[in-house]
Amino acid sequence: MDQPKTIAYQGVPGAYSESACLHLFGVGCRTLPCERFEDVYEAVLDGRADGGAVPVENTTTGSIHPNYDLLMKYPVHIVGEVKLLIEHCLLAPKGVGIGDLTGVKSHPQALAQCSDFFASHPKIAAIPEFDTAGSAQIVAREKGTTGAIASALAAEKYGLGILKKNLENQPGVNITRFFAIAKEPLADASAGTKCTIVYTPGGNRAGLLHKALSSFAVRNLDLLKIESRPRPGRPWEYIFHLDFRGNAATAAVAQTFEELRLEGGEVRLLGCYPEGSTRKLFSSRGVIPELP
Amino acid sequence: MDQPKTIAYQGVPGAYSESACLHLFGVGCRTLPCERFEDVYEAVLDGRADGGAVPVENTTTGSIHPNYDLLMKYPVHIVGEVKLLIEHCLLAPKGVGIGDLTGVKSHPQALAQCSDFFASHPKIAAIPEFDTAGSAQIVAREKGTTGAIASALAAEKYGLGILKKNLENQPGVNITRFFAIAKEPLADASAGTKCTIVYTPGGNRAGLLHKALSSFAVRNLDLLKIESRPRPGRPWEYIFHLDFRGNAATAAVAQTFEELRLEGGEVRLLGCYPEGSTRKLFSSRGVIPELP
Repeated sequence: MDQPKTIAYQGVPGAYSESACLHLFGVGCRTLPCERFEDVYEAVLDGRADGGAVPVENTTTGSIHPNYDLLMKYPVHIVGEVKLLIEHCLLAPKGVGIGDLTGVKSHPQALAQCSDFFASHPKIAAIPEFDTAGSAQIVAREKGTTGAIASALAAEKYGLGILKKNLENQPGVNITRFFAIAKEPLADASAGTKCTIVYTPGGNRAGLLHKALSSFAVRNLDLLKIESRPRPGRPWEYIFHLDFRGNAATAAVAQTFEELRLEGGEVRLLGCYPEGSTRKLFSSRGVIPELP
Repeated sequence: MDQPKTIAYQGVPGAYSESACLHLFGVGCRTLPCERFEDVYEAVLDGRADGGAVPVENTTTGSIHPNYDLLMKYPVHIVGEVKLLIEHCLLAPKGVGIGDLTGVKSHPQALAQCSDFFASHPKIAAIPEFDTAGSAQIVAREKGTTGAIASALAAEKYGLGILKKNLENQPGVNITRFFAIAKEPLADASAGTKCTIVYTPGGNRAGLLHKALSSFAVRNLDLLKIESRPRPGRPWEYIFHLDFRGNAATAAVAQTFEELRLEGGEVRLLGCYPEGSTRKLFSSRGVIPELP
């Protein structure tokens, strides 16, 4: 029997990123918690992990820029994608009810996403913590009247009760996109349906970005996302992370890259991978939840 | 004689943003420190301040997204721009030398931008604080062997000595761009040389962004910056903040906006203002430092 794969993520057990590992690499994988995003990339490159899961974008708060910069910095490949519907749960030590709660801990972003709950429960204080699953871990240790906002997976990990599901203000539209990263690109080059590239224009002349987008448009390559990042050491110049539908082994994509490289432009393919679908978070390792 | 103008900024006295206020509204203005970015916008709208200065982008760390979202949320107008060369100084209570220092406090981003200093001084601990000028304030109060990384203006405010200028790893390329905001647009509509707009495409069809950029390209309107933000409640759709050279009162710009509005696109002009030049930070109120 094959050894289970080891997959790295940033956070503590029960983190939303751990759920992404299971979706991207299968429920049988062994997950490796890391302190920093950098540690995930380094574990993948030095062989401690067979792959990693990193969040790149959330539909309510936008791009997670540290990972855009780290995807540039480390020579990893994007090999997959998943879009996880974030469903915040109100967790508390077993036996503690909503009426007993004096405070609720979580990451400031999760607290903000559940602000309606705090507005309608003025006696419950919102207490900022380092991360969501980490606050579940703390609350389980304290065994007091403080709850946590975290995933259902965190409730299971730390033996907490779920007092309320979908605590977020806008259920159904809070989705985080994760990339699967690995040391090598996908073995089957034909499996990719979406590409992520970094495009560095050859200078700062007017119209260069428009010209670059024309190269995609004339070939009907559907541009899904454009993200600009500062070009290191060159104030007010930018590099562009572009996501588009297409397979990197096709002539259309090869011609596009060729055009982008004219006039000194640089193109780096970060990965060609199957476009991810939207999934529900794991509440346990037993089942892979899928949206209808 | 006119009453001095009151200008709001986020931070404590001596913050880089306070220096931006003086550049944008003149050394004679009265500066109003605010706790949160939101407070700056609200002070401008409710009349407690005549204007505000908000950072929108740094050349090493990228866009400051909270302000992109707040410029959308509040009906303020951009009336000016300045690009401030960030020069971090190593500050300490007077009489304390570099050899005496046991730790240095600052905002984590400033500590990271000065990592070479810490690498070559392994006995000095980097201690994270809420902000740069705030850490100067703390260090001045403590009167111990802990220093701070902050601006020369903060040294003056809190009576600290400057042990070293340009502590940053890459002097000369760390620049922050600030907008001047006000309740009304610039009185002289012809004074603007640059515009910032928010463009919301009329749907999610392929090629819409390319088409929008074509409207600028065919009129030789130089696009300086494109920033995508998630469209609220519409997963994987985006709104675009676009900066371009041009005056909003000209026919070319009016025609461009007209084209962008075809097929249901929306355009909001956040401001038309004189393009900002790069300036040095204030070290005191006496002089307006200008780059050669």
